[in-house]
Amino acid sequence: MSTEKCHANGKSSPAPGPVPEGHIRLYSMRFCPFAQRTRLVLNAKGIKYETINIHLKDKPDWFLQKNPLGLVPTLETPAGEVIYESPITCEYLDEVYPEKKLLPSTPFGKAQQKMMLEHFSKVPYFYKIVMGKKNGDDVSGLETELKEKLTKLNEDFANKKTKYFGGDSVTMIDYMMWPWFERLEILPFIFSCLDNTPELAKWTERMREDPAVKATSYSLDTHKAFYKTYADGKPDYDYGL
Amino acid sequence: MSTEKCHANGKSSPAPGPVPEGHIRLYSMRFCPFAQRTRLVLNAKGIKYETINIHLKDKPDWFLQKNPLGLVPTLETPAGEVIYESPITCEYLDEVYPEKKLLPSTPFGKAQQKMMLEHFSKVPYFYKIVMGKKNGDDVSGLETELKEKLTKLNEDFANKKTKYFGGDSVTMIDYMMWPWFERLEILPFIFSCLDNTPELAKWTERMREDPAVKATSYSLDTHKAFYKTYADGKPDYDYGL
Repeated sequence: MSTEKCHANGKSSPAPGPVPEGHIRLYSMRFCPFAQRTRLVLNAKGIKYETINIHLKDKPDWFLQKNPLGLVPTLETPAGEVIYESPITCEYLDEVYPEKKLLPSTPFGKAQQKMMLEHFSKVPYFYKIVMGKKNGDDVSGLETELKEKLTKLNEDFANKKTKYFGGDSVTMIDYMMWPWFERLEILPFIFSCLDNTPELAKWTERMREDPAVKATSYSLDTHKAFYKTYADGKPDYDYGL
Repeated sequence: MSTEKCHANGKSSPAPGPVPEGHIRLYSMRFCPFAQRTRLVLNAKGIKYETINIHLKDKPDWFLQKNPLGLVPTLETPAGEVIYESPITCEYLDEVYPEKKLLPSTPFGKAQQKMMLEHFSKVPYFYKIVMGKKNGDDVSGLETELKEKLTKLNEDFANKKTKYFGGDSVTMIDYMMWPWFERLEILPFIFSCLDNTPELAKWTERMREDPAVKATSYSLDTHKAFYKTYADGKPDYDYGL
């Protein structure tokens, strides 16, 4: 597991060499929900990849040279091509690796998944609520919005009458949404929202059985422990290693 | 030109019938920069389409039934499929209509265009600055950010050493960015930013010669006149008809 340790700036973290042929490299952070999207797709499609975890509060210079925005997830290919922004990395992987296609083959099917992702990205980011509470801000507006949006999502999902958001098997949109649901349980007051969204709760249970979800998930205790260090302003990216 | 008039709610705007076979329908607003993206792509690709302009302050119920978010641009096909969010509509059109492909054929080429669009979408929306000024807000931070981002965009573009953002011919990314540059001149204090971004200024001049840009643009006077009604809170969507 020691290779999982994050790379910070300085002499102790020399720049990695070129990406081995036949592999792709993921720059990641173990607890980042955006990076988990890419990890889910890499695992679901059985792609050979290596991971380099980044210390997001002390990013190596060599990482900033590859991606000046310093974002994770970032992909790097053996040819030195660099791809970032989670939905872009996931679509790239689905196009390059034809095994187990996660996006539909029709243009309208793809458009539908992208529209669902746009809707989902308008659900308030729940960390904002927790951090706001911690800072003594009034977050009641955000809380109401979160509940409303989850209720609407539940309703839209119920109307589909399918097991997953893109049909009766897991597709890209499920992986794009999953990382936030995996973390909901950290936050009891938000998790209780799911009591009023029974269809989303059932989807969550189905998703927990997915092999890629199992391969990329952390336990609730680990999430909670990392989250505590994050909320305290000193995120321990290597928690549990 | 009377068919260009916008549809408001009420008996005077009955729901349109099905989309004719062999055509696609665009729900639009003549001065909306997001809808212009889709109009640019429709024109560049020579797609047969019909336009229904929407009164954005009094949306017809039948429009909200098709797209509950009430957004323009929205596309509708003869099969009744509905597609919205400007980048999604444009990618859909590029996939369905093979003539004159606007996105690169390689997955990495596509990813590059999407990453450029992400960068561009982080440039502050200049209307916010103008409306902020009007309301007496302190917009100095936004102005500084806009200038910095345009300078960076100019620098990145200069480094490409190509005539357009995707190479030496117009591609999707140019059309995604153009509508905001067409409107910059409305706002003298922002337009003067281009004095310090000579490569962007040259790109702007080249884009004005593009047939799809010519087909979808309005004159500076028309933009200014519409903008005035917008800033006054009573947008005249039919200005000039």
